[in-house]
Amino acid sequence: MGEISGQLSVDRSEIDHFDSTIDVLVVGFGAAGTAAAIAAREQGASVLALERTGGAGGAAALAEGIIYLGGGTPVQRACGFEDSVENMTAYLMAACGPEPDEAKVVAYAEGSLGHFDWLVGRGIEYDARLDEETQMAPRGTHGLVWSGGENAWPFNQVATPAPRGHLAKTKNATGWLLMQTLAEAALAMGVEAAYDTRAEQLIVDDGSVVGVVAQRYGERTAILARQGVILTSGGFIWNDEMVRRHAPTLLKGTWKVGTEGDDGIGIEMGQAVGARVKNMHVGEVSLPIIPPRNLIQGIIVNGHGQRFINEDTYMGRVGQAALYDQEGSCFLVVDEAAYEPNWMGIGATWVCETAAELEAEMGLAPGALEMTVELYNRHAANGQDPLFHKDQAWVRPLVPPLGAFDLRPGSAPYAPFTLGGLETTVEGKVRSLTGEPIPGLFAAGRTTSGICSFGYASGLSIGDSTMFGRFAGAAAANAQVNA
Amino acid sequence: MGEISGQLSVDRSEIDHFDSTIDVLVVGFGAAGTAAAIAAREQGASVLALERTGGAGGAAALAEGIIYLGGGTPVQRACGFEDSVENMTAYLMAACGPEPDEAKVVAYAEGSLGHFDWLVGRGIEYDARLDEETQMAPRGTHGLVWSGGENAWPFNQVATPAPRGHLAKTKNATGWLLMQTLAEAALAMGVEAAYDTRAEQLIVDDGSVVGVVAQRYGERTAILARQGVILTSGGFIWNDEMVRRHAPTLLKGTWKVGTEGDDGIGIEMGQAVGARVKNMHVGEVSLPIIPPRNLIQGIIVNGHGQRFINEDTYMGRVGQAALYDQEGSCFLVVDEAAYEPNWMGIGATWVCETAAELEAEMGLAPGALEMTVELYNRHAANGQDPLFHKDQAWVRPLVPPLGAFDLRPGSAPYAPFTLGGLETTVEGKVRSLTGEPIPGLFAAGRTTSGICSFGYASGLSIGDSTMFGRFAGAAAANAQVNA
Repeated sequence: MGEISGQLSVDRSEIDHFDSTIDVLVVGFGAAGTAAAIAAREQGASVLALERTGGAGGAAALAEGIIYLGGGTPVQRACGFEDSVENMTAYLMAACGPEPDEAKVVAYAEGSLGHFDWLVGRGIEYDARLDEETQMAPRGTHGLVWSGGENAWPFNQVATPAPRGHLAKTKNATGWLLMQTLAEAALAMGVEAAYDTRAEQLIVDDGSVVGVVAQRYGERTAILARQGVILTSGGFIWNDEMVRRHAPTLLKGTWKVGTEGDDGIGIEMGQAVGARVKNMHVGEVSLPIIPPRNLIQGIIVNGHGQRFINEDTYMGRVGQAALYDQEGSCFLVVDEAAYEPNWMGIGATWVCETAAELEAEMGLAPGALEMTVELYNRHAANGQDPLFHKDQAWVRPLVPPLGAFDLRPGSAPYAPFTLGGLETTVEGKVRSLTGEPIPGLFAAGRTTSGICSFGYASGLSIGDSTMFGRFAGAAAANAQVNA
Repeated sequence: MGEISGQLSVDRSEIDHFDSTIDVLVVGFGAAGTAAAIAAREQGASVLALERTGGAGGAAALAEGIIYLGGGTPVQRACGFEDSVENMTAYLMAACGPEPDEAKVVAYAEGSLGHFDWLVGRGIEYDARLDEETQMAPRGTHGLVWSGGENAWPFNQVATPAPRGHLAKTKNATGWLLMQTLAEAALAMGVEAAYDTRAEQLIVDDGSVVGVVAQRYGERTAILARQGVILTSGGFIWNDEMVRRHAPTLLKGTWKVGTEGDDGIGIEMGQAVGARVKNMHVGEVSLPIIPPRNLIQGIIVNGHGQRFINEDTYMGRVGQAALYDQEGSCFLVVDEAAYEPNWMGIGATWVCETAAELEAEMGLAPGALEMTVELYNRHAANGQDPLFHKDQAWVRPLVPPLGAFDLRPGSAPYAPFTLGGLETTVEGKVRSLTGEPIPGLFAAGRTTSGICSFGYASGLSIGDSTMFGRFAGAAAANAQVNA
């Protein structure tokens, strides 16, 4: 064995003195980190969480706070939906690909009811009502939303539609409540948290990770982790250079979903000790067009005036398609009956009496939009959308005058975060370049590649962060002492 | 410093005995490897090349053998084309993005004339005639082709069109001749080559790469490299698991461009000693529709009957767009005047009297293709293509009956190879995770991310392999002795 990248890892022989010793050391105290800490503590391990900011929460605390859960949760059942592990698995395998991590998908679906109970057990409450209108956090306290296009083509063909976006009981964004609850639960159990403390190097000893060197107010501190280190320090959307190297398409995004902590340090520390990465090019790209849902009676077109997706699907899929496949060229065309400015106050940039006038105003080629509207209307008159399979509930001919929303990155918020990272087992063990787990090293959350290889539904990131965070915490707590 | 991944790297302290010592050790004896070996030898270094197969050549020996060169080569000038470093740079910055490696692009354009001379100096001859008909190797001995859509939109807007695909003087594929010439030149200069010898581990000593452990007929051999190791062992298209992890879209490809040696071992050996990778999701996807060039009078459409690219561009761009952005959904629709089976014998799967009948036969939605043909013809009647900007030389209304070629992956050859790999400097130094060069480690060719971050032109892979291979060889030969 031999190695080079000394800035991100250090050999134990070079550590003169350990300032503290713990069973399980968690790097980052956000969604994955709090869940991992709780789970490790539940197994009797002493746990220290290092957090570079002044408090717990990470990106999840700033988020909508949706957690993707199914298989027949009490909230789903109270809202009148049937679901099963098999049904949820079928949806996820279709929605999270291409080539989703099947072992994680299956574990996630199988673990979903248990994860719901675990969240409730930590203090999360749910208002068992569905908000049909949004794919994000409701204005009210509703606990359930359609957050992944489950009731839209093609997913309604492969699984029985069921909403699975679960939100803790509070109005608007719920991530802060989720994280407050989890962090308080962790601390109440005896998890120690060191804030303003930045992990900088993994300490390795004869092939195992045995601790971390961190900085706190300019002082270096070396911490020995007897059973394992769990990397839960987020993704890399805040690191432009890493994004340019791995996922340059995301540079076209206009908002970064995350915190400054999402600079990829956890991923790179893992790589410095020989960890494998996966799907580093992938990002979810939120494009929050709706509510109101009525807008999806319109058509979404690219810069050639062509439709490219069924408008009733999850808006994150629209955002990914627009940014990855359509060069960020995206417009929403509606008629008067469907028109109103959306929840962000974005309204029609252009309004014209005919499609021909509208395409001219928009700078599209003559006939491009006109033909698209003509073809759409021809089928819509029969309540059909044979090209993109929008549900007939939203399909009717568009009647001029027509308005167009400018949904290009300069005008609308494209909000990406990264989905690629370290490759882990279901238990959260980090795989080396040759595939075997690296002793003493665990990871979860956006530091890892989770269940999504590309496709996404709202709630899957905090969902897999917390569930696989728990699994990683338990695995680390039950790992052999190696330090 | 500490490390883990012992299977791909080994500490010098664990090597009992070195079986041989050399100044510069080259891993892989293909396009990049032969160029690197020659350049290192030219600088006076002793050079040993390890090749896992029984002979020199690698993937390049099986390839068309185009090398992308410009700036006013003798072949370009003899064929009547003006070009300059600035013009070539402008094209490459537009064609190799998004976010191409500008330092490499500039160095490549600036080095292009010198590289032409270097190739001639090694024994490559050129027949200074242009073959207009193909973007690949001509049937004749022609030395020049349009290989990157330079004379098509949008590149004809950003640079003066000039063909830059150079081919050694022989009929059909020329890669074998190129590689035979370079390998013979290397051996004649005193480069040693060890065939049937598989590099398996990099040897590191106090932060530097100092050699390689290799296997030959089951025997391990440790080789000390006094000045450096150059990894030139190809990409990873032949490693399905790596492709699944990093570039799952390419799994839809039907041919693999490369050899079994393109299993990513060079990339992973680099990573094992802390190297950074870049653009691992990217692959060139050849879709060799033409010749005959007349076929581009037709229109290329996706499964929604929509056009998505100008048909007169480089077919590799069509292949990338079809596979990455259109889910492999791709058809070529032509009329009788443009029709003939292509060079591969692929003909129309469906022929119908009208577009409406044709779309029905193809399984497209009613009106989808009909509208597209109608819109295309409306503008084509004026010699225009305002949607996709096909050059007016190829634009005329399509006259039924119409035929459609099935160009989906099941029916047409999608031939990908990987473009992602280790991040290197222009000189071929391999960057660590934190950006600084790793002492003693160099790389070139498809083991690295070259000048293309996504977009590609034929000849850029062997082009950057040989040019940056030369640079890496020279840099290694001039490196400080560290072993």
